[in-house]
Amino acid sequence: MDAGRILDDFRSGAITREQALSLLNKLPYEDIGFAKLDHHRQIRRGGIETVFCAGKTAEQVRAIFERFISTGGNAIGTRATPEQAEYVRAALPDVQYDPVSRLLYIMGNPKPRTGCVAVCTGGTSDQPVAEEAAKTAEFFGANVIRCYDVGIAGIHRLFACLDEIRTANAVVAIAGMEGALGGVIAGLVSVPVIAVPTSVGYGASFAGIAPLLTMLNSCAEGMSVVNIDNGFGAGYLAARINALVTQGNHP
Amino acid sequence: MDAGRILDDFRSGAITREQALSLLNKLPYEDIGFAKLDHHRQIRRGGIETVFCAGKTAEQVRAIFERFISTGGNAIGTRATPEQAEYVRAALPDVQYDPVSRLLYIMGNPKPRTGCVAVCTGGTSDQPVAEEAAKTAEFFGANVIRCYDVGIAGIHRLFACLDEIRTANAVVAIAGMEGALGGVIAGLVSVPVIAVPTSVGYGASFAGIAPLLTMLNSCAEGMSVVNIDNGFGAGYLAARINALVTQGNHP
Amino acid sequence: MDAGRILDDFRSGAITREQALSLLNKLPYEDIGFAKLDHHRQIRRGGIETVFCAGKTAEQVRAIFERFISTGGNAIGTRATPEQAEYVRAALPDVQYDPVSRLLYIMGNPKPRTGCVAVCTGGTSDQPVAEEAAKTAEFFGANVIRCYDVGIAGIHRLFACLDEIRTANAVVAIAGMEGALGGVIAGLVSVPVIAVPTSVGYGASFAGIAPLLTMLNSCAEGMSVVNIDNGFGAGYLAARINALVTQGNHP
Amino acid sequence: MDAGRILDDFRSGAITREQALSLLNKLPYEDIGFAKLDHHRQIRRGGIETVFCAGKTAEQVRAIFERFISTGGNAIGTRATPEQAEYVRAALPDVQYDPVSRLLYIMGNPKPRTGCVAVCTGGTSDQPVAEEAAKTAEFFGANVIRCYDVGIAGIHRLFACLDEIRTANAVVAIAGMEGALGGVIAGLVSVPVIAVPTSVGYGASFAGIAPLLTMLNSCAEGMSVVNIDNGFGAGYLAARINALVTQGNHP
Amino acid sequence: MDAGRILDDFRSGAITREQALSLLNKLPYEDIGFAKLDHHRQIRRGGIETVFCAGKTAEQVRAIFERFISTGGNAIGTRATPEQAEYVRAALPDVQYDPVSRLLYIMGNPKPRTGCVAVCTGGTSDQPVAEEAAKTAEFFGANVIRCYDVGIAGIHRLFACLDEIRTANAVVAIAGMEGALGGVIAGLVSVPVIAVPTSVGYGASFAGIAPLLTMLNSCAEGMSVVNIDNGFGAGYLAARINALVTQGNHP
Amino acid sequence: MDAGRILDDFRSGAITREQALSLLNKLPYEDIGFAKLDHHRQIRRGGIETVFCAGKTAEQVRAIFERFISTGGNAIGTRATPEQAEYVRAALPDVQYDPVSRLLYIMGNPKPRTGCVAVCTGGTSDQPVAEEAAKTAEFFGANVIRCYDVGIAGIHRLFACLDEIRTANAVVAIAGMEGALGGVIAGLVSVPVIAVPTSVGYGASFAGIAPLLTMLNSCAEGMSVVNIDNGFGAGYLAARINALVTQGNHP
Amino acid sequence: MDAGRILDDFRSGAITREQALSLLNKLPYEDIGFAKLDHHRQIRRGGIETVFCAGKTAEQVRAIFERFISTGGNAIGTRATPEQAEYVRAALPDVQYDPVSRLLYIMGNPKPRTGCVAVCTGGTSDQPVAEEAAKTAEFFGANVIRCYDVGIAGIHRLFACLDEIRTANAVVAIAGMEGALGGVIAGLVSVPVIAVPTSVGYGASFAGIAPLLTMLNSCAEGMSVVNIDNGFGAGYLAARINALVTQGNHP
Amino acid sequence: MDAGRILDDFRSGAITREQALSLLNKLPYEDIGFAKLDHHRQIRRGGIETVFCAGKTAEQVRAIFERFISTGGNAIGTRATPEQAEYVRAALPDVQYDPVSRLLYIMGNPKPRTGCVAVCTGGTSDQPVAEEAAKTAEFFGANVIRCYDVGIAGIHRLFACLDEIRTANAVVAIAGMEGALGGVIAGLVSVPVIAVPTSVGYGASFAGIAPLLTMLNSCAEGMSVVNIDNGFGAGYLAARINALVTQGNHP
Repeated sequence: MDAGRILDDFRSGAITREQALSLLNKLPYEDIGFAKLDHHRQIRRGGIETVFCAGKTAEQVRAIFERFISTGGNAIGTRATPEQAEYVRAALPDVQYDPVSRLLYIMGNPKPRTGCVAVCTGGTSDQPVAEEAAKTAEFFGANVIRCYDVGIAGIHRLFACLDEIRTANAVVAIAGMEGALGGVIAGLVSVPVIAVPTSVGYGASFAGIAPLLTMLNSCAEGMSVVNIDNGFGAGYLAARINALVTQGNHP
Repeated sequence: MDAGRILDDFRSGAITREQALSLLNKLPYEDIGFAKLDHHRQIRRGGIETVFCAGKTAEQVRAIFERFISTGGNAIGTRATPEQAEYVRAALPDVQYDPVSRLLYIMGNPKPRTGCVAVCTGGTSDQPVAEEAAKTAEFFGANVIRCYDVGIAGIHRLFACLDEIRTANAVVAIAGMEGALGGVIAGLVSVPVIAVPTSVGYGASFAGIAPLLTMLNSCAEGMSVVNIDNGFGAGYLAARINALVTQGNHP
Repeated sequence: MDAGRILDDFRSGAITREQALSLLNKLPYEDIGFAKLDHHRQIRRGGIETVFCAGKTAEQVRAIFERFISTGGNAIGTRATPEQAEYVRAALPDVQYDPVSRLLYIMGNPKPRTGCVAVCTGGTSDQPVAEEAAKTAEFFGANVIRCYDVGIAGIHRLFACLDEIRTANAVVAIAGMEGALGGVIAGLVSVPVIAVPTSVGYGASFAGIAPLLTMLNSCAEGMSVVNIDNGFGAGYLAARINALVTQGNHP
Repeated sequence: MDAGRILDDFRSGAITREQALSLLNKLPYEDIGFAKLDHHRQIRRGGIETVFCAGKTAEQVRAIFERFISTGGNAIGTRATPEQAEYVRAALPDVQYDPVSRLLYIMGNPKPRTGCVAVCTGGTSDQPVAEEAAKTAEFFGANVIRCYDVGIAGIHRLFACLDEIRTANAVVAIAGMEGALGGVIAGLVSVPVIAVPTSVGYGASFAGIAPLLTMLNSCAEGMSVVNIDNGFGAGYLAARINALVTQGNHP
Repeated sequence: MDAGRILDDFRSGAITREQALSLLNKLPYEDIGFAKLDHHRQIRRGGIETVFCAGKTAEQVRAIFERFISTGGNAIGTRATPEQAEYVRAALPDVQYDPVSRLLYIMGNPKPRTGCVAVCTGGTSDQPVAEEAAKTAEFFGANVIRCYDVGIAGIHRLFACLDEIRTANAVVAIAGMEGALGGVIAGLVSVPVIAVPTSVGYGASFAGIAPLLTMLNSCAEGMSVVNIDNGFGAGYLAARINALVTQGNHP
Repeated sequence: MDAGRILDDFRSGAITREQALSLLNKLPYEDIGFAKLDHHRQIRRGGIETVFCAGKTAEQVRAIFERFISTGGNAIGTRATPEQAEYVRAALPDVQYDPVSRLLYIMGNPKPRTGCVAVCTGGTSDQPVAEEAAKTAEFFGANVIRCYDVGIAGIHRLFACLDEIRTANAVVAIAGMEGALGGVIAGLVSVPVIAVPTSVGYGASFAGIAPLLTMLNSCAEGMSVVNIDNGFGAGYLAARINALVTQGNHP
Repeated sequence: MDAGRILDDFRSGAITREQALSLLNKLPYEDIGFAKLDHHRQIRRGGIETVFCAGKTAEQVRAIFERFISTGGNAIGTRATPEQAEYVRAALPDVQYDPVSRLLYIMGNPKPRTGCVAVCTGGTSDQPVAEEAAKTAEFFGANVIRCYDVGIAGIHRLFACLDEIRTANAVVAIAGMEGALGGVIAGLVSVPVIAVPTSVGYGASFAGIAPLLTMLNSCAEGMSVVNIDNGFGAGYLAARINALVTQGNHP
Repeated sequence: MDAGRILDDFRSGAITREQALSLLNKLPYEDIGFAKLDHHRQIRRGGIETVFCAGKTAEQVRAIFERFISTGGNAIGTRATPEQAEYVRAALPDVQYDPVSRLLYIMGNPKPRTGCVAVCTGGTSDQPVAEEAAKTAEFFGANVIRCYDVGIAGIHRLFACLDEIRTANAVVAIAGMEGALGGVIAGLVSVPVIAVPTSVGYGASFAGIAPLLTMLNSCAEGMSVVNIDNGFGAGYLAARINALVTQGNHP
């Protein structure tokens, strides 16, 4: 029941003024408010729902995908294990799984890609996080330039593809260990840089704390940071910025 | 000396092939490369230079401002103490100082503001960081919607100005203590949210670690984080996104 | 404008169906929802508003108290400095200040106290936090049994007043250093124990981390923990439990 | 031997004054004092004993359950592994095991449930901790409202069941990652909220430190915190508050 | 009233059996048990009471000393400020103050010293902690060998006084920065070594965490550790071991 | 070659003055000094050598035991895995292995036990650490009183065996989680208490950090702390103190 | 294309001035600058490339080695698993694998070794890190003195080989637990000491944090520190210093 | 008395064999061994003694300088306050004080400088640490190239002086905040880089932890790290390497 129906029923006498007020009193939480929220989420995401698979049983993940599919929407699951993927795909063969990024997804209703974002990594070992970022950005409508393994040991490769990176509307910079890549890139481009520390490394990298702190303390302007190994969050945000820019002045 | 001059001198015989190579060998570092970089920085910042005043002597800060002013540029200094400000302004009376945000700035060449960003805080005590973000965003060409003191205790005020916030091209969300404001706003808007943890709080807030971790772990999509109390960084990044969006599709 | 008025105007034809929907659409945030929240807050707190004074200017604190007083409500400010207190009281002489607990308060409309809570400390140095808890509990309508300095060095005093403590509906246990007091009391009473770690101590107490961890890890059942030095939170919660119990079965 | 018997034997001359004093000297520790304590524990828990199974051998767990059962009491074991459960149940088939909450329990003497507590979670992955809390509360005599998966991504479901939650005498709020759920609920209800951080998450959630800090720093009043993943402690405390409230004014 | 009196009154008929039981029921906590404890404390400490002065007002410290003096006992206060000392000594001129160790003490009833303990420091800057340890050990009846500034830079001085150190029944090893002194000494002597990390140092010494961890991880056998800067605790424990050894086989 | 031999050879003319000096110059390191050290170690340990097995290959452990056995000495290995034990015992069947304490040992030359130490634990799960401490103390010549599972939940058992504990010359107090046992015992006995934090617990116990901090911050006098789970170190130190006390006044 | 070729083509008229400038403009990044960098790297490393194998797939590691081998260079991979090694060696049988140090390497073009470095360890368990350091130093052209297991328990062995150690041009000191070895050696030699903390230990060694802090805080001059377990980095740096010293005064 | 004298006295009969042995037995510690050590220290330092002034009284600092001066040696004190300096110089006017580096020094016997080291900083605020490093290196005989303020914001200045830096035998790289400078330089030079993290920064720089971790985790080879703000240690080590290299092949 929505607010319009309440108004109509009230005017028609089907419900009393008291009943109308009681129904309206619940609406803020139940219908009006959060349908509105959901509407916003729907707009932002282009009809794609997300599920964090870690810690869920395979049954729970499948049930969630079934619900999304039944409502016709697209869906993307992060940190899905091969076992979860296998279980889901046995029942829902249209669902795809990428073992590198651990993404589980279905895109029945793909949208055309516009603009582009760049995804850069410091080393080969950062690739799983990078693919999570890149594929996520693609899901949410961006073209993606992949520029991997361009950390200090191979920084000439960063420069080699700098012109291409500069065509992007946002850059995702992924690095473990010392994590300096983010600051280096932020000093070279004029678009927002989203830095992703990774848990790649050992010893005093403390599973990502070291690059996280490096990135938070960077004196290079125009950079912000997401959680350790959070390729999804970075890819989503980059796609969001890309969409805003390609759509031009915000209405 | 630039590359064109070297070519000309080489062709004219004013320098030998060996001399030309030696000069070119130095160019990458000294002239071509980093003039190019500086040119980029210039474009990005609209001719505004930044100086981190903390830990510098008043003499050093004044010398830096004098150099910037002599080259006709604009300048903005962060975390300036009243003593530094007084010393600088004694010699350079056009420099302005805002004791709340601790910004020291001169804007001889103001640019017209376009688009807008929103700056929101959880509590009144976050105001110094918020003003740093807001004034920084204004320096870099954005109109600013200030929406202060809209944390949990006053969240109805957040909703009261939500329509206005939604006109912004980027939102800066500033909060100390539990730091939940960022995630709440990111769930309500469709533009990038830049979260700034503050050192406001006591005990287990650990001078900003608590809200920093809250923000990094938020499951609300579309949010990224900058350093504790880094109002400048957030304001700069928000202005940057705003500029990209108002300029429309990136060339 | 409230929902009833919208219904009436709609039925009377003063507003169209579209206008009614538009107005209702905003209500969730602006009026219905959060008036309801505020109403709840009002019930819970017995008409007392709270303000965290740390990090605010004296002018800001006074402005907040003036607004509360003008609406006839009671108010309590935590962590107020003597300077803030002096400034506020110069304009608002009815406001009281307790320099030990650093509470700044006005209670024009005191409520009768019912039931009781006990506030216990491990040592004399915990007294500021204890008084914050005790006075807060009194503000929110509880009688308070003070049982100070009953840590390991004086645990016989704890036993000496154990019968009295057992008359309380909730116990606040405050301790720094090793912080074992909470667990000891939780093993001796049958009502909820709210443990407050304090920053009293030195070296490896790490400004309260040691007693915080002790309390979180206690194997004594029936205890929970609030932030380091958070006497206010513990006193408020104890008063809340006390009120629930003295009011009997929750409606 | 108890104190009455000593008095009688003393008066009858069966023991000398010196013998009586010697026996009494030991009583404080051995009989009077701690029988009294145990009596209190017995009252509080309704005759249910608890055992922390982690780190114990299956033989040790079985021996403890056998002793409890032989004395006719109820018993509940936390963090029991399937192996421990299988070993115990082979000998004691009346003992039950719930693999989700990892609770191992026997309730030969169930007590009628009164009042109710609500158990809420931020996400599906928090379910094991939630079931530990819920089942524990039920063991200790409370009816339980389960309200799972109501974090930010599904907060409309929280509002949908808010009226039901408000019938509870205590609320357990369970969340990992950013852990904001506790503060949100504490802002909406008037009963005590017991927050449980969980180790669900990755990267900078640091196995529960992030939500722990969020909850400790919440500015929402009426909330306290237990150890990371400590569903048992929260369920026990909620049941305890519920019992106090349903029993009315504490005698 | 003690247990003997209760027995006598009971036999004489001055109190009934019920009254006798009621009185005995309270004894464990109020008289028998903790008088016994206090008796033990008295024996252990040789009639010296201790007070932790930090965080107490000067008035509170003086009141505590007055109570101890009125009961004829000795007393020692740790971490007393010059202001506290001045205030106490104005009223109680027999109380002494040592500004280096910050000890405030009165020893009306000095005991003869027996045996000896050694107090060693790594550097001159550790002297305040060392003097706290040394003077505390003297208060509790030990002769003290001071062996200061014998860290790595001056380890030849350690060897120079090694023969003397080996006459001690316990050694206190005090060091900041890397804190290796404890392990070095523990490898050279056959008596217990009590290691005290100090907050002397900078940077990654983290106010004593570095030497604390060094000492806890030492593979030298026969060493244990007390809190950072806890000269009092180490001096007390060393004096206790010394007393046990000089008294010979424990009765 | 020792110093006496050098003197004799020098006087006899078998070596020149220069040769004598050269030999003496090496003696400090090679023979005099460290033979002296080793002599001390030998006295302290009663001829028992120790080896930390973790991180060593089974071959390395066996080689070390073979060397010790060939020199007729006793040996004790800590943290030995069952695999290491099996491999060593296949070649050296006289070596014994205790899977609970993970000690691997051979005592061809057992010494008579004198005096006694007490080993107490908070819970059943602390048993492996406790057995390491207890068996170590026995190896080094002490009788051991085991007093397990006497933490808060079973503290009446602590009091039940308090008289026996008080016959010990040193007490080892072992506890995980909140770790309050050490402070409780230190308040009840007059001999040194060596506290051992264990990694038993979960969540905010942080693998032993919580009880470690509790113990370091205890205000109970006469207690010191060793590394987390370091049963060996505590057992060795307790045996050392016991030996000193039973030998009476140190020569 | 290099700068000389551009000059020649420009002079010959094969390219215009504009084309020459355009080519030169790209050179800084693509050719001049980083060829120059690579040239330096080549010189420094003696033609040996390094690859961090952890987190890479076996396929990726093999592809990298194939590329290095095809260009005739030497290569060394760190932290290679046996599985990676087996996979690489199946295709490239000249590649060698050392399971202790986990190094995977090929040295088709071995260089003569000059000078020497010493590698010392505190205990047998540090051997894997030590072998990584030692073999790395050998790869990069140094002779290596191995001096293992010379920590506190066996420090006489350190002195026994001190004369040999003193012939080295750099010393690598490797230790876990308390990590004091570095400071001890730095006090005995006059060449640079590179300290490597290891994750050997338990409890409060916190996987290498304890020795890391010990080493950073050492007051012994002439020592610096690398990451926990970073044998490669220490071995490389020692070889570098050794090469500089043996080559004499830097040109 | 030295060993030669003992031999002579023994042969002459001035002392008995027993007396000779007794004297020799003490020599290892008192004379031979540590005179030897001191001799080494003397060689390494070129006759300069060092004193850590923090935490010492002005009287203590002056006494130490007086002792050094009386023995004709040079001396350098670190972290001296202006008050200490003034007090020392009042009595010893030849002692110099540099308020930026806080060094207090006397160099009666200056040595000629050879070779050179480079000292680079990321920002102007790092200057005090840099001057401590630079002046220390000069004291110990190195020429110093100062290359300040060459962090990311001014990295073109780093390249501008790269040729000069490459003439150095060791480089000290000093940076706060993200601390990436060390890794950048290590990628550009072929000599050892000693990285010094500074406490410059705010928020998540955690007083130097962030740059410390960055530097420890750097994947640039040839770099090692000293304590936060430890300019002295870095300057000393750089001078040591410089001296080794300029002296050529180590004898």
